Amino acid sequence: MSFKTQIDKRLALAISIADSAHEISLPAFHQGVVSKNKENGGFYDPVTKADTDTELHLRKRISAAFPDDGISGEEFPDKPCENEWSWCLDPIDGTRAFVAGVPVWSTLISACYNEKPVIGIIDHPALNDRFIGAHGKAWRITARGETRLKTNKCARLNDAVLSCTEPLAMFSSGQRGAYEMIRRTVRFSRLGLDAYGYALTAAGRIDLVIEARLNPFDVMALIPIIEGAGGAITDWHGGPASKGGAIVCGGDPNLLPQVYPYLQRALDI
Amino acid sequence: MSFKTQIDKRLALAISIADSAHEISLPAFHQGVVSKNKENGGFYDPVTKADTDTELHLRKRISAAFPDDGISGEEFPDKPCENEWSWCLDPIDGTRAFVAGVPVWSTLISACYNEKPVIGIIDHPALNDRFIGAHGKAWRITARGETRLKTNKCARLNDAVLSCTEPLAMFSSGQRGAYEMIRRTVRFSRLGLDAYGYALTAAGRIDLVIEARLNPFDVMALIPIIEGAGGAITDWHGGPASKGGAIVCGGDPNLLPQVYPYLQRALDI
Repeated sequence: MSFKTQIDKRLALAISIADSAHEISLPAFHQGVVSKNKENGGFYDPVTKADTDTELHLRKRISAAFPDDGISGEEFPDKPCENEWSWCLDPIDGTRAFVAGVPVWSTLISACYNEKPVIGIIDHPALNDRFIGAHGKAWRITARGETRLKTNKCARLNDAVLSCTEPLAMFSSGQRGAYEMIRRTVRFSRLGLDAYGYALTAAGRIDLVIEARLNPFDVMALIPIIEGAGGAITDWHGGPASKGGAIVCGGDPNLLPQVYPYLQRALDI
Repeated sequence: MSFKTQIDKRLALAISIADSAHEISLPAFHQGVVSKNKENGGFYDPVTKADTDTELHLRKRISAAFPDDGISGEEFPDKPCENEWSWCLDPIDGTRAFVAGVPVWSTLISACYNEKPVIGIIDHPALNDRFIGAHGKAWRITARGETRLKTNKCARLNDAVLSCTEPLAMFSSGQRGAYEMIRRTVRFSRLGLDAYGYALTAAGRIDLVIEARLNPFDVMALIPIIEGAGGAITDWHGGPASKGGAIVCGGDPNLLPQVYPYLQRALDI
């Protein structure tokens, strides 16, 4: 089977399971849910029955269709791969938004070939807004139809629209200083978006995302979408984003060299 | 005409103009818009053609239906009232969200009798999510139908979900210290919501909103909705919210006495 066919078969499955996951996540979102804290003390990290139920559903369908593919996800232990393929899942990215009734939460689905993400989906069930990246391009599907994604060519940091989910909670004090310098330089900032900030960067509405404390399953699905739309996503040192941690994403790749000096200084102190 | 009939006639108009404003605001939102900065230097305060076009439309329809009612709004000078009634409009609350492609922006419409807001609408055209308050009650209309709004009875600050649009940009340093103490006490916080944070408080999904630098047109429409759903909204001293400034809103009115001491101390320093 050609590599393109291997991707296409997995892309068809990824779209199908994103659809069927709605039946689990959406009723829970609209009803309102009870969250439990996964961590003892420290950073509040909520999980709901909708997170675990959705991930179980996604795992079951992937295992049935591609039994040799590996699976890693937010809520369960890794299933190792017996071929070159592995899936990375975040059943509900933005569990805080989900709990608070804010429709920007998403389901993240990615498929990696030899650990490199080649398929990514950011699906927002409550917004009916889906972003897909594969084969080096990216597109968006809403009730108004399908559009090809293209980032905004914003090369000046002063003109950029910045996104960060929670600058007061996700940064160390050094990181927060770097973020604050950049925030005061850009046009304006928009908070509270989780993966939607990256999706809107692919769509050309946001120019820059700066975040930290991300997990690989928060990031993996974003990469084919951002890169397929013409943007760049790396860690704060300019290395690969796929390991998570401190992440920066630019719609225009020329923005990144303007922010790396601030970000790298923050990691040193 | 009875007072109830005077309210009902204006409520019908408010709903009708919220509907017709969609035709102006929604296409501009989906196309993407150019924003201008209203202020010279300092706090970035964007305005778009969609803001001014939407407000002109709302003013025209109100003036045609109730020529003696006053009108104040974000983008144009006040029209004085020649009776007891005045309208307060924010054509697009959350212009930053609007520019960045984030669908939480809203149109705020309120009608006041002797300066007391008796009708409020928070309408989210891009979410198809409308909140209405009048006659001492509040309700929500979505594609899934109409529901009566009732706030969450969360009397302990530790359990509360907190909302604030932009804690790094909207507070003075003293205010920011107070916010930070409260943020570290609550269950978790959710940022970037503009008026949607108050709407979700009325819906029982968020418990507490703390903000500052608000204008009367940012606040007026919220009051009948929050109070009609069982919540409370005041300034940081416990006085009326209708003048704007530093505002606090609790789904459970018992939350407010727990945060006033922090907030009032912040105003002193």
